[in-house]
Amino acid sequence: MTETLPTGTQTAQSADTLELLGLVAQLELVAFARLASDAALAPTLAQRLELTRFAATSVERRDRVLARVAELGGDPEAVLGSFAHVLDDFDARTAPSTWWERLLTAYVGYGVADDFCRHAATSLDEQSRVLVLDVLGDVGHTDLAVAELDVARADDEVLVSRLALWGRRLVGEALGVVQNLLATRPGLARLAAAADGAQGGDGTARLFGELTAQHTRRMGRLGLTA
Amino acid sequence: MTETLPTGTQTAQSADTLELLGLVAQLELVAFARLASDAALAPTLAQRLELTRFAATSVERRDRVLARVAELGGDPEAVLGSFAHVLDDFDARTAPSTWWERLLTAYVGYGVADDFCRHAATSLDEQSRVLVLDVLGDVGHTDLAVAELDVARADDEVLVSRLALWGRRLVGEALGVVQNLLATRPGLARLAAAADGAQGGDGTARLFGELTAQHTRRMGRLGLTA
Repeated sequence: MTETLPTGTQTAQSADTLELLGLVAQLELVAFARLASDAALAPTLAQRLELTRFAATSVERRDRVLARVAELGGDPEAVLGSFAHVLDDFDARTAPSTWWERLLTAYVGYGVADDFCRHAATSLDEQSRVLVLDVLGDVGHTDLAVAELDVARADDEVLVSRLALWGRRLVGEALGVVQNLLATRPGLARLAAAADGAQGGDGTARLFGELTAQHTRRMGRLGLTA
Repeated sequence: MTETLPTGTQTAQSADTLELLGLVAQLELVAFARLASDAALAPTLAQRLELTRFAATSVERRDRVLARVAELGGDPEAVLGSFAHVLDDFDARTAPSTWWERLLTAYVGYGVADDFCRHAATSLDEQSRVLVLDVLGDVGHTDLAVAELDVARADDEVLVSRLALWGRRLVGEALGVVQNLLATRPGLARLAAAADGAQGGDGTARLFGELTAQHTRRMGRLGLTA
């Protein structure tokens, strides 16, 4: 038996889906710009080439998300454009001053935003959910960051402590971005709350615990204390 | 009957091929950086998205060239890296001050370098030649530049004359890059001379006539006087 939702409900749900897809597309667009800058500053040619490949992947991923927006009847540019400044504050507050800080900002800071999207995506229709989870999969940043941090660790214990501190600052700012999104985007708040409920949580209580746990795990993979 | 070249000749030819492939790969790497900057500065979101797509294409094209380098027994990073600064002077002398100048720099300035590579590629083995000609195909810049210049023309005749002047400056600087390459890279000079010879020319006499003609045609497509 096929469940038929009232038309109003379907529309509201679809609007919420478009909101999340817009955020994911914007994160990929921002990722492109950041990866392109990282590539320009990479200390070795091998890293530079690799970072341009990640940038290219972010374009392809963004366009897959925008194609889904169009399939659902949304306007890709409007949906993406509504999140144009979502990371402006975060970027302004966390301008990295070294190559290591850049890597960590990309891996840790943006990781939190990705985790939030993955969490909220559990409330989407299956096709959109699979797409978001696939698009937000790791593009190889982990390997690059882990390899670089290994070099740092062998070299300079003070640098490692400073990066651990940097990571704590990043996660604070990134959680602030998520709080701001929940406060200003009712569609995202509904998806996040529904995802929390589906996983046995209440409101978005479970969400922040999950984001913090993911962050700790991520820092751990880099050998840094969260 | 299969013609067998002395081993020394084969090696020299292969070294020349690697030199040209390295230049093409470097031009694509530089194109990525430029397209990424253009994307960041694009006046509309639609243009920004399109420019990131061109940037992604340049990554894929560069990697196809580097794969061919590896097939021919070359070291991709060394071959590419030997051209690391090939456009530094050109970029420093032609820093665009407006969005229109940026577009023209990309389309006209880099177009000359691409034309040079296409010319020299006629002397390569078939697989490398086909690859280079395919990789240096237009990625849609023409359409973007033509559309933008149409807007400029409707708007501002003074701007159009200034851009025509800018185009003349660009081609002068770009031909300087080619002359420098011919003077400092014997492999490229040999390929260019062989291509000239194959087309009934003498030395590289035909090359500069061809580059200038292509430039004039390109400016004409934009409605600008070369």
